[in-house]
Amino acid sequence: MLNKKNKPLLHKRKEGMRPGALIYVGDSDCEETRIRTHIYDSEGSTTFEGFSMEYPEKQRWIEISGLSDIKGIVLVAKEFNLSNLSLEDVFSTDQRMKLDYYETYFSLTLRVLDTPKKEEEQLSLFVGEGWVISIVEHASDIFVPVVTYLKDTQTKKKKVDAHLLFHALVDRVVDQYLVRADELDQLTEDMEELVVNTPERVTAPDIHKLKRKILHLRRITLPLKDLLANLIRTENIELGKATIHLFRDTSDHALWLNEECEMLRDTVSGLMEVYLSSLDVKMNKIMKVLTIISTIFIPLTFLTGLYGMNFIHMPFATQHWGFYAMFLCCILIVILMAAWFKKKRWW
Amino acid sequence: MLNKKNKPLLHKRKEGMRPGALIYVGDSDCEETRIRTHIYDSEGSTTFEGFSMEYPEKQRWIEISGLSDIKGIVLVAKEFNLSNLSLEDVFSTDQRMKLDYYETYFSLTLRVLDTPKKEEEQLSLFVGEGWVISIVEHASDIFVPVVTYLKDTQTKKKKVDAHLLFHALVDRVVDQYLVRADELDQLTEDMEELVVNTPERVTAPDIHKLKRKILHLRRITLPLKDLLANLIRTENIELGKATIHLFRDTSDHALWLNEECEMLRDTVSGLMEVYLSSLDVKMNKIMKVLTIISTIFIPLTFLTGLYGMNFIHMPFATQHWGFYAMFLCCILIVILMAAWFKKKRWW
Amino acid sequence: MLNKKNKPLLHKRKEGMRPGALIYVGDSDCEETRIRTHIYDSEGSTTFEGFSMEYPEKQRWIEISGLSDIKGIVLVAKEFNLSNLSLEDVFSTDQRMKLDYYETYFSLTLRVLDTPKKEEEQLSLFVGEGWVISIVEHASDIFVPVVTYLKDTQTKKKKVDAHLLFHALVDRVVDQYLVRADELDQLTEDMEELVVNTPERVTAPDIHKLKRKILHLRRITLPLKDLLANLIRTENIELGKATIHLFRDTSDHALWLNEECEMLRDTVSGLMEVYLSSLDVKMNKIMKVLTIISTIFIPLTFLTGLYGMNFIHMPFATQHWGFYAMFLCCILIVILMAAWFKKKRWW
Amino acid sequence: MLNKKNKPLLHKRKEGMRPGALIYVGDSDCEETRIRTHIYDSEGSTTFEGFSMEYPEKQRWIEISGLSDIKGIVLVAKEFNLSNLSLEDVFSTDQRMKLDYYETYFSLTLRVLDTPKKEEEQLSLFVGEGWVISIVEHASDIFVPVVTYLKDTQTKKKKVDAHLLFHALVDRVVDQYLVRADELDQLTEDMEELVVNTPERVTAPDIHKLKRKILHLRRITLPLKDLLANLIRTENIELGKATIHLFRDTSDHALWLNEECEMLRDTVSGLMEVYLSSLDVKMNKIMKVLTIISTIFIPLTFLTGLYGMNFIHMPFATQHWGFYAMFLCCILIVILMAAWFKKKRWW
Amino acid sequence: MLNKKNKPLLHKRKEGMRPGALIYVGDSDCEETRIRTHIYDSEGSTTFEGFSMEYPEKQRWIEISGLSDIKGIVLVAKEFNLSNLSLEDVFSTDQRMKLDYYETYFSLTLRVLDTPKKEEEQLSLFVGEGWVISIVEHASDIFVPVVTYLKDTQTKKKKVDAHLLFHALVDRVVDQYLVRADELDQLTEDMEELVVNTPERVTAPDIHKLKRKILHLRRITLPLKDLLANLIRTENIELGKATIHLFRDTSDHALWLNEECEMLRDTVSGLMEVYLSSLDVKMNKIMKVLTIISTIFIPLTFLTGLYGMNFIHMPFATQHWGFYAMFLCCILIVILMAAWFKKKRWW
Repeated sequence: MLNKKNKPLLHKRKEGMRPGALIYVGDSDCEETRIRTHIYDSEGSTTFEGFSMEYPEKQRWIEISGLSDIKGIVLVAKEFNLSNLSLEDVFSTDQRMKLDYYETYFSLTLRVLDTPKKEEEQLSLFVGEGWVISIVEHASDIFVPVVTYLKDTQTKKKKVDAHLLFHALVDRVVDQYLVRADELDQLTEDMEELVVNTPERVTAPDIHKLKRKILHLRRITLPLKDLLANLIRTENIELGKATIHLFRDTSDHALWLNEECEMLRDTVSGLMEVYLSSLDVKMNKIMKVLTIISTIFIPLTFLTGLYGMNFIHMPFATQHWGFYAMFLCCILIVILMAAWFKKKRWW
Repeated sequence: MLNKKNKPLLHKRKEGMRPGALIYVGDSDCEETRIRTHIYDSEGSTTFEGFSMEYPEKQRWIEISGLSDIKGIVLVAKEFNLSNLSLEDVFSTDQRMKLDYYETYFSLTLRVLDTPKKEEEQLSLFVGEGWVISIVEHASDIFVPVVTYLKDTQTKKKKVDAHLLFHALVDRVVDQYLVRADELDQLTEDMEELVVNTPERVTAPDIHKLKRKILHLRRITLPLKDLLANLIRTENIELGKATIHLFRDTSDHALWLNEECEMLRDTVSGLMEVYLSSLDVKMNKIMKVLTIISTIFIPLTFLTGLYGMNFIHMPFATQHWGFYAMFLCCILIVILMAAWFKKKRWW
Repeated sequence: MLNKKNKPLLHKRKEGMRPGALIYVGDSDCEETRIRTHIYDSEGSTTFEGFSMEYPEKQRWIEISGLSDIKGIVLVAKEFNLSNLSLEDVFSTDQRMKLDYYETYFSLTLRVLDTPKKEEEQLSLFVGEGWVISIVEHASDIFVPVVTYLKDTQTKKKKVDAHLLFHALVDRVVDQYLVRADELDQLTEDMEELVVNTPERVTAPDIHKLKRKILHLRRITLPLKDLLANLIRTENIELGKATIHLFRDTSDHALWLNEECEMLRDTVSGLMEVYLSSLDVKMNKIMKVLTIISTIFIPLTFLTGLYGMNFIHMPFATQHWGFYAMFLCCILIVILMAAWFKKKRWW
Repeated sequence: MLNKKNKPLLHKRKEGMRPGALIYVGDSDCEETRIRTHIYDSEGSTTFEGFSMEYPEKQRWIEISGLSDIKGIVLVAKEFNLSNLSLEDVFSTDQRMKLDYYETYFSLTLRVLDTPKKEEEQLSLFVGEGWVISIVEHASDIFVPVVTYLKDTQTKKKKVDAHLLFHALVDRVVDQYLVRADELDQLTEDMEELVVNTPERVTAPDIHKLKRKILHLRRITLPLKDLLANLIRTENIELGKATIHLFRDTSDHALWLNEECEMLRDTVSGLMEVYLSSLDVKMNKIMKVLTIISTIFIPLTFLTGLYGMNFIHMPFATQHWGFYAMFLCCILIVILMAAWFKKKRWW
Repeated sequence: MLNKKNKPLLHKRKEGMRPGALIYVGDSDCEETRIRTHIYDSEGSTTFEGFSMEYPEKQRWIEISGLSDIKGIVLVAKEFNLSNLSLEDVFSTDQRMKLDYYETYFSLTLRVLDTPKKEEEQLSLFVGEGWVISIVEHASDIFVPVVTYLKDTQTKKKKVDAHLLFHALVDRVVDQYLVRADELDQLTEDMEELVVNTPERVTAPDIHKLKRKILHLRRITLPLKDLLANLIRTENIELGKATIHLFRDTSDHALWLNEECEMLRDTVSGLMEVYLSSLDVKMNKIMKVLTIISTIFIPLTFLTGLYGMNFIHMPFATQHWGFYAMFLCCILIVILMAAWFKKKRWW
């Protein structure tokens, strides 16, 4: 369920480790590290493979994916004076979303949702004067639009500083959440239609699975609201006016997410009730059929049994019309019973 | 359900877009833009089709419906120095209710409920010194009373400034919510009567649909309370005393809405339980009938079966009164059984 | 349910009305207005029919019931400089409880519970220096004890000012809530006893009706706590020490009310579960009877059927003891079956 | 249920009474008043029957039980300048827990849990400089340990002032709550074992009764937390350091109580679900037996019925082995059916 | 359940005891006290059996397990000027997590989770300038990694003060919680798979037991969040920057724990619903089989019964093809019935 088979072992593996130790405790098969440096200013942007400190006067974004090469990552971190403690979180890939302020930089840890191609992973962002470092566990194309955005002509006109880039990265992740929420909304509506129209094609575990997905998204995105509010109001970093405005927008999205998850949860809980009631309704129908058939034929069977007895003297038994009278009697009883059921609105 | 088939695609479509881009991301078939300018002062009001900046000394309300003509709307916005960011929200028609303060104006985004004629839509209000801009997706007659109110003789005596007009517009939207809440209250009571008196005419999906409508209204109106409280307490804008008093009233309505939705949700949840219990009661009745019939006739059938056996020597089989004795015996059993069921209060 | 058939039309009727308009929007058949003036000081109190401003140096309580004569009420209001806005709330008889401060007076809107004689109604209180105005929709004897209290000899000794009178009026209303809560508590206990002892005399709608009553009281009294806290802590009005102490007591009652409603709601929800379980238990009993009867007699019927077949050669069929052997065999089976059910604790 | 038959009449009886009136509104049969005075200092303590003001320099604890002699109690109250308002609460024995500060003293109202010997009652504590008054409705031995504690040699060494005594009294009451919570915990575990192992010996009303007891304790103890926090933080009284530390401990117990009640409520709600599921499981078993028996024997009965028909020409009817073949055929069907049920894991 | 058979007696036993009395009130069989002293500085660490005050200039950690030797523990406590009140909590082994500040030291009370070898127990930590005392009820190896950490070469380089050691100890306990939460997460997922795939191998009590474990962990860890927040923000103690950073990390874990427990509880509640629905589905299947068999064969039995009657004149009874025609008729009815059930999608 939810592809996290290995996760429960995580804290076990980490148990008793010295705080600040740089050991990767995520899934066993760690992806190869790949570092790319994006250098940009108002003129445009260039992308290098590998880490580079060229053009020190320009803005810099170090994009790292894969955590296998711990030493390489530490080297980059040293260059920007990242503390060991903040690096440790990068390698403990089960962190709750968090925002930490350090002397010359701040860090934000987010969770990137799973896609069909890759599992859910952790994104660590470090932001300082003129530089941003982003570290993810698996290479993916989630930040491609940001790269395009840096190269974009329209962007060139306004100065994109580290904070704006930081927002663009965060926005990409939050957009993913919104899309996921929409998908779950759609799934919930589809499930609703199924439950209402063809409940026999739904099972309780289906609804439960949907609920779990909603609970999971809710749990991941729950801290987002407070975190962004903190980021906007803090005095530790000076975000530009434009950036604050953009983050306020992202913050609105976070609120929307919380409310949406809340409503979806309520709706799916209600769906389960509707599904259960459909089982009851079906049962009622089944029992009605059984009861009608039994109630009609069991008395009749008794009646025929009566004349099936081997007494020597039975009334009418020797009459020619005896059998026909009996048969008529039975048909009469059936008709009366049917009328009675009709009156009781049993069909 | 709830006419929002297309919505889930919204965030997908918007994903990866540069913030501040003015692209309409709402439902595909966008209504034609129609702009009307209302100019008014203490003497009365005039309405022009199209945008007009005549009589600059007077109060001005620009009423826009339909988002197809983005350029036209941008032109109006330029005239009042609206920032691109605030305009972007107009075209992203899935915003959460929000209140934003800018240097010379503030904006409020609300949701206008669906009517039989049109879908739920977004209303953006921009309010500055002496002017109000209202932008909706679809033309509707929701603001007709406000236009009348501006023309009204009684109004002329007191000065209607932009803030008072702004309140009148917001009040119209909130009134809609109140009416909807009343309707849902009525629907809930009707449903209650149905469930209590004729549960066979109700289905669980009916109750679920009602619950979803309530949850939807609740979700839309949830942010309203905080938003209005913010508007009243803020120091960013100076609302007049009268306006504050009016908004306090609207704020009371928002509180009433929240409590009403809460109570309706609880009531409908209870209704579902009552409905489910009615299924159980019905089942009990059906089973009782089956059990009574079976319990009476199955033993009798056995009894007749006994004398239906082809043993050559059976007691009483050759007696004249044998059959009649058996028959009496059966009737006796029926009477005893019936008495026993009566005693057990089974009917 | 809850006698509010007409209410849902309320907001509809009011929709689009100009704020501040004095039009009665409550139930259609509006009661005739009756005004009484109570004038009192430390010497005692006198009551006049109609409005009177005699003895301006004394304390004054204007008691108004019935909203048909709007002009008359407005006249009284003018005398005490009540603003139009605060008067409007008097005629919109669906207000949420609220407390408003004006320059020379403050107003409190409460809901008076329905009695067997009259429906739930709204009470508006206006309190200024030396005067109190109380306006209700229907004449009732709820304030009779307050009138007696004013005339009371014991009261004469201590000075009753407007605030103390105001408290006495509020206290009467809150007392009503407490009595209602006690009644609902009693009803819940009665229902409990019924559900536990004779569940067949209870129906789910009965329990639901009780729950709705509790939810209704809860909703009405929910704002009371905050409102009284506000009244006690505010700096807008200077309540005397004794008055504050009395209101603190009333505030304790409001807290008690909230907790009581909360607990009653939980209890009634639990009751529904108990009731549903009683249905299940009953079903189990019914099914047991059916199963026992069927399980015993259906095999026996087969057995007799076996010897009812018309084969010419059947073992023992020609023996004298054949029938008796068969009969014994059947009785043996019944006994064995009964023992087996006994062992399985089926009865 | 919960021995409060008379309570619902309480507010009715009190309705319309003037605030500050000293009339006992509790249960009808009021216990005789008994006053005891404990005088103590660092040397030891003496106990007098009746009220005594001897040794004015020493600490004093007036222990009153029974509310019949209102005048006597008022006399004591006068001696310590207790206000009428604070005395009124003593006689309204349905108060919510509360803490009130007066000029020279403060009062605390608590609820003392019912014991097998006496009903739940109210405890009023008044604490001033050098004196404590405790008033309960019924004489009980709840404060015996406190008396012992005053006489205790170990206590003599440290100065016990009024505040420490006050804490000792409160602590006794809170200890009672803790013991009750433990008892309910034990009852819940016992119920759990019953529900899990022998659900047929449990009924839904049993579980409901347990839940009500938990809800009742929860409701009584809910205000305790805030009350003690208020007591510790207030600037109205100067508690000694030691006293504050002791109250902090009591406050921790109050928090523990809240959490315990919360958890017990959740557990008992879960228990009800488990119990209901046990009913379903039982039903399934019953139905299985019925279905297996019916499914095997009804077809067989048909088969024998077939050869029970009175056609003159029936195949094999005249064969010697006919009956035996038929019998074998039946046994074969039984075996096949049994195998099929086995395969379907029906037993 | 949960191995706390003896606990409910705890508060009973403690009832009426003088506060500050040092009497062990935990489980009856108290473990023998064992004291170990760890002395360490930047050079490394040494461990002595028993209490030792050697090397007063070095950091000191007194590790005590077992509470039988009260006098011995009091002796150690005297050495560090621990107050009696703070010692009392050590021996009342049912404390809620708490943090207390004293003049020269502070104390933290935590709960250590049960392991297969030992029961849940209480950990008391006392931290002062240069010393830490840890007291647990049972000897265990939970702190072995901390001892190793003190001896570790890497540790030597940085100065480990009392606060850092304190964090290491707390971290060990919180790590246990995290591991337990992971285990419960795994158990929940396993249960989910069972309920979804093989519901017949699950019982409601199994799910309930899991829920109780989750509720228990939730309750224990609930206060942790506030406690750590208090520790970080307090001005009573001066934690170093590094320590604060480490505790912030632990605090994040506490938040994670709360959310995890919340989600697990929701999930398990949902699981119960899925399980109950599986019972209903199974019932439906059973009833379908019964109904189909009954509905097909009961009418047939009637038909055969009809020709089983002993009338002398029955149509076709003397025909050669009579029996075969009847047989064909029966087969036809079976086929028609089956087709009808097929059409109704009953199988």
